[in-house]
Amino acid sequence: MIIDVHGHYTTAPKALEAWRNRQIAGIKDAVARPRVSDLKISDDEIRETIESNQLKQMKARGSDLTIFSPRASFMAHHIGDFQVSSTWAAICNELCFRVSQLFPDHFIPAAMLPQSPGVAPETCIPELEKCVEQYGAVAINLNPDPSGGHWTSPALTDRQWYPIYDRMVAYDIPAMIHVSTSCNASFHTTGAHYINADTTAFMQLIQGDLFKDFPTLRFVIPHGGGAAPYHWGRYRGLAQELKKPLLRDHLLNNVFFDTCVYHQPGIDLLTGVVPIENILFASEMIGAVRGVDPETGHNYDDTKRYVEGATRLTPEQRRQIYEGNARRVYPRLDAALKKRGK
Amino acid sequence: MIIDVHGHYTTAPKALEAWRNRQIAGIKDAVARPRVSDLKISDDEIRETIESNQLKQMKARGSDLTIFSPRASFMAHHIGDFQVSSTWAAICNELCFRVSQLFPDHFIPAAMLPQSPGVAPETCIPELEKCVEQYGAVAINLNPDPSGGHWTSPALTDRQWYPIYDRMVAYDIPAMIHVSTSCNASFHTTGAHYINADTTAFMQLIQGDLFKDFPTLRFVIPHGGGAAPYHWGRYRGLAQELKKPLLRDHLLNNVFFDTCVYHQPGIDLLTGVVPIENILFASEMIGAVRGVDPETGHNYDDTKRYVEGATRLTPEQRRQIYEGNARRVYPRLDAALKKRGK
Repeated sequence: MIIDVHGHYTTAPKALEAWRNRQIAGIKDAVARPRVSDLKISDDEIRETIESNQLKQMKARGSDLTIFSPRASFMAHHIGDFQVSSTWAAICNELCFRVSQLFPDHFIPAAMLPQSPGVAPETCIPELEKCVEQYGAVAINLNPDPSGGHWTSPALTDRQWYPIYDRMVAYDIPAMIHVSTSCNASFHTTGAHYINADTTAFMQLIQGDLFKDFPTLRFVIPHGGGAAPYHWGRYRGLAQELKKPLLRDHLLNNVFFDTCVYHQPGIDLLTGVVPIENILFASEMIGAVRGVDPETGHNYDDTKRYVEGATRLTPEQRRQIYEGNARRVYPRLDAALKKRGK
Repeated sequence: MIIDVHGHYTTAPKALEAWRNRQIAGIKDAVARPRVSDLKISDDEIRETIESNQLKQMKARGSDLTIFSPRASFMAHHIGDFQVSSTWAAICNELCFRVSQLFPDHFIPAAMLPQSPGVAPETCIPELEKCVEQYGAVAINLNPDPSGGHWTSPALTDRQWYPIYDRMVAYDIPAMIHVSTSCNASFHTTGAHYINADTTAFMQLIQGDLFKDFPTLRFVIPHGGGAAPYHWGRYRGLAQELKKPLLRDHLLNNVFFDTCVYHQPGIDLLTGVVPIENILFASEMIGAVRGVDPETGHNYDDTKRYVEGATRLTPEQRRQIYEGNARRVYPRLDAALKKRGK
């Protein structure tokens, strides 16, 4: 079984974006503010957007199940206040839940949180609880920078995040550390901000001792861990200078990387440097890079080809990357699969 | 001959830092403001700090010549105004010039600029001209984020930078894109801000068409290009979506990466992915990572070992990385060497 731990509903029906635009207009103009009930998306529309996009590609490429969360760049936590984020997160999470209900063999939800810059993260707990308990979410996406590229929040090791971590531990769910769109003109959203955030998060975790307080807390750093595996020696050296334990002991019981690295040498490095038990298969399809690589004739984000092409890997290691590690890091996914006899 | 294109005077006599602290105190208290003439550093002091540090390591590791610039994290362009930066840059550049005079076979200067957030970059031109014409500087360090982690400047492709680029082209000198210390608590200086800046700069260059306006302008992106080579497929794919030419045509006549990647798999990836003519030997010794790697028994930043260990490289390719590319990218370095019969 091949589990893709990183998919977003990037292909949601246009009505969603239209509603969001009205919501944004409504921040300054109460008359323009839409009601949640104004958004009407039918099951057929959802089916169509999934069957002709993500599911079609999953079948073509040979992956079975995607952990599916709202479109990352559309979370846009910097827009409006908590109430705006809260309404928006509820809508987006419900849509991903509906996808998982319509395609239970192929999608299982992960939740976005109604974060808002300067607002205490614990305000997100009711949405988190609803998504886990009512929608069967197996993980959350946690945005370390709800400001959208201005980085005004405390580090991930700060106690402000602890209420979220408490709930994660109680539910035994991991968080993917995932920023949203950049509203800082210096940072291209998917080319700089996403990758920088991954790198930044990893370094924040090196600097702190978060997993002493939360020994079972788990984070997935997407996009192959940003720059971290490429600069693994730098990070081992910086941890050493900060008098931290070896990365393996300091972080690697709790921090995992996905395989969203879009060429063979990148996956070769990732799988050569990072312990196999810390690598989870993912593609972020349909996402940031949708084209066909002229050097290979295949989609850049068809990451299964690179995992297959990583000649150093044994079949058992590939099985770990494709399935075993995901079942271990996302126990609620494992439980849901077992319930279905898988 | 082995040329290290990336060294900073991180070991300058303590008097420099003491003077800087007085200068910073003097921003708010004119009485505390030191005069430039208050800073007294003798040639013997300079000799001692170099001979027992950088030069000792260069001899031990087998590199010959270092392009030497002021300590990057101490540039701190976010502190004070243009006048503060201007005085500080002049002092730091003069010190590196003195190093190059005392050790002409081993050090050649690159200049820091007196950048200041919100101040037009062209104000840096007099210092740039002085360093090239009087100090023999063969390059500059250009900070894309003088705010120190708040990223308030326009992208590197913005016309605000063009006066600097005009002078670079006229002098035929490259710029290393190098940020300074982070005053944003989210970003560890050497573990996040440096690497993020490299990635950010590369993506800004992908988004723009700067080299259409400046076909001979050259940038060196340090720290192995940040995350760019590891995510080469992503960047090829993003350039493609932005309807840009292939990276080779779009950027690689003008953009170069150094070898400050502190483990063998990172250098293997860099040299496997990026054309050899775009890779310049560097260590940033003595810099961010000063320890000994317990896995190898050697210093993390002894990057020559990794270049030697990159089994894919031919001797001729190593010669390019060590010397040939640097002579081509830094023509004033080449001219200075030829003048000395090298």
